[in-house]
Amino acid sequence: MRVCIIGGSGHANFVFQGMDQDPSILVVGVAPGSEGEDVGKFLNAAQKRGQLPQYYEDYRKMLDELKPDIVAVNCHFGDHGKVNFEVLSRKMHLFAEKPLATAMEELTVLKREYDRSGAEVAAMFGLRYNPAFYTAWHAVREGKIGEVRLINAQKSYRLGSRPEFFKHRQSYGGTIPWVGSHAIDWVYWFSGQEFVSVMSHHSTMANRGLGSMEMTGLCHFRLTNEVFASVNIDYLRPSTAETHGDDRVRVAGTRGVIEVRHGRVYLISEEEQGTRELSLMETDGIFLDFARQVRGEGKCLVSAKDSFVVTEACLRAREAADKEEIVYF
Amino acid sequence: MRVCIIGGSGHANFVFQGMDQDPSILVVGVAPGSEGEDVGKFLNAAQKRGQLPQYYEDYRKMLDELKPDIVAVNCHFGDHGKVNFEVLSRKMHLFAEKPLATAMEELTVLKREYDRSGAEVAAMFGLRYNPAFYTAWHAVREGKIGEVRLINAQKSYRLGSRPEFFKHRQSYGGTIPWVGSHAIDWVYWFSGQEFVSVMSHHSTMANRGLGSMEMTGLCHFRLTNEVFASVNIDYLRPSTAETHGDDRVRVAGTRGVIEVRHGRVYLISEEEQGTRELSLMETDGIFLDFARQVRGEGKCLVSAKDSFVVTEACLRAREAADKEEIVYF
Repeated sequence: MRVCIIGGSGHANFVFQGMDQDPSILVVGVAPGSEGEDVGKFLNAAQKRGQLPQYYEDYRKMLDELKPDIVAVNCHFGDHGKVNFEVLSRKMHLFAEKPLATAMEELTVLKREYDRSGAEVAAMFGLRYNPAFYTAWHAVREGKIGEVRLINAQKSYRLGSRPEFFKHRQSYGGTIPWVGSHAIDWVYWFSGQEFVSVMSHHSTMANRGLGSMEMTGLCHFRLTNEVFASVNIDYLRPSTAETHGDDRVRVAGTRGVIEVRHGRVYLISEEEQGTRELSLMETDGIFLDFARQVRGEGKCLVSAKDSFVVTEACLRAREAADKEEIVYF
Repeated sequence: MRVCIIGGSGHANFVFQGMDQDPSILVVGVAPGSEGEDVGKFLNAAQKRGQLPQYYEDYRKMLDELKPDIVAVNCHFGDHGKVNFEVLSRKMHLFAEKPLATAMEELTVLKREYDRSGAEVAAMFGLRYNPAFYTAWHAVREGKIGEVRLINAQKSYRLGSRPEFFKHRQSYGGTIPWVGSHAIDWVYWFSGQEFVSVMSHHSTMANRGLGSMEMTGLCHFRLTNEVFASVNIDYLRPSTAETHGDDRVRVAGTRGVIEVRHGRVYLISEEEQGTRELSLMETDGIFLDFARQVRGEGKCLVSAKDSFVVTEACLRAREAADKEEIVYF
């Protein structure tokens, strides 16, 4: 399984996590996807594992010359759409940082190209494979809380120091699509419903000089079957906090409530007294799951449909916040 | 301090909690406020404390004859507006179940009557006096989290068995005003801001035959200073849960995040490493606080303005859910 990596700004390290379990995965080429992007960390990660990927300045040349099986794209977020298009137009399988694009027009073009390509696509919703989220989702799917009625999802991050390209909407895309996408993905994934409408707000206030980067976001989704969901997003987690992120989801159903909080899963259901903490299930991680699908050996937990729908939901949520209007899907 | 109680459907037991600390509080009369309402529990509560309040069929006659200092109103929620009006038009101090009214027109008339009356008003936002919420609010007010930016508040209840009048919007008013009002009050109280707009949804699905009673609600508020807040409300807490309610608030600010969860308060701030649990502060409770204000001895934590503004916010949020529109204040 020959892999190229484009960009050094996202989570292409998923590829190396997969490689550590499956040595048939080879990183054969690495190139920047955005101007001035440093991809050194991925070259190092490959070399540390005894691989010698070729470095290219021009990712298109890399794709044409190396003809990889899978391309992992994680450049500046504003360039995702353009680079992903170059991959799909070459009918190569795409493992892409989320969101797949940062403008609706680009997403539409990309979706058309995907339909034509016959290629497989998965967005890097790697948090689905986090043991706590995976366990909770599995319990919901098994019917432990009955029918899903209400979801609250949270992403809270330490601000830390952010690269220059975060300061500009053009290159960053916005905090709802970047940070919020995971939580919006949980909403979609846990609900088993389709998006109907979204209302959102976001604010750049108190962003410590980070240009147009939003520090807070709040999204309010209506889904089919009168399922409602909130997503709250912030970079307000103090630097002194125990962990970088405080990822949560709470799903209330007709027969119980399940929650992920601090990496643990809590279930209350009509079936048993009190709150029960669930034992965590392990997974092989997102890249191996996607590689298996590419090999025709199964279905990746993150489907192409999921990747496109959640990207659209992110962009519609951002639009709702920009316009202060309800946006319909 | 002579008190009359109208109705038997809400939280007038706050009066007896106050009486247990201050025996100068006397319940002199009790009457139903809605047709067929049983007020026996309050007559019993008074008798258990050696008091013999008079029972009246007609609360207006009771007010005219007994001329109490304070009237506690807690009848069917759809009658709050009408009964509260009768109290204020007699220039009596009003300790009223929330929401103060269940229709905007009633609320407007009531507000005008309040302005004319010279009387004191407090809605029964007794959860402000809950040690955890009070402690968290106190910490926010002391600046422990800097400026408030984002709030998420939750009310989750066991369904249990609900009286007949809950089944009809006319008498019940809706789940956002009834259950959600507390959480909407926390949003207002913790934020220190004014409401700008609200978008909401609610659903009667899976309500186990309870007519028009909504099982879930989700509200999305914009406040001044680009503060955003979500409020999620449900009756989905399983009967097997440890407690009746799962009340929460999370307030993220520019220098920290504070949370109330399971009756405890957790603070992370830039000032200290990791999460700290705060020691809980005690209060005298809402009725004594209001009685002191009536005596001219201080300001009740729940002001008349708070009572009217939060009632309005509840009704606007319900309107947004009914119409699926953004409603502006």
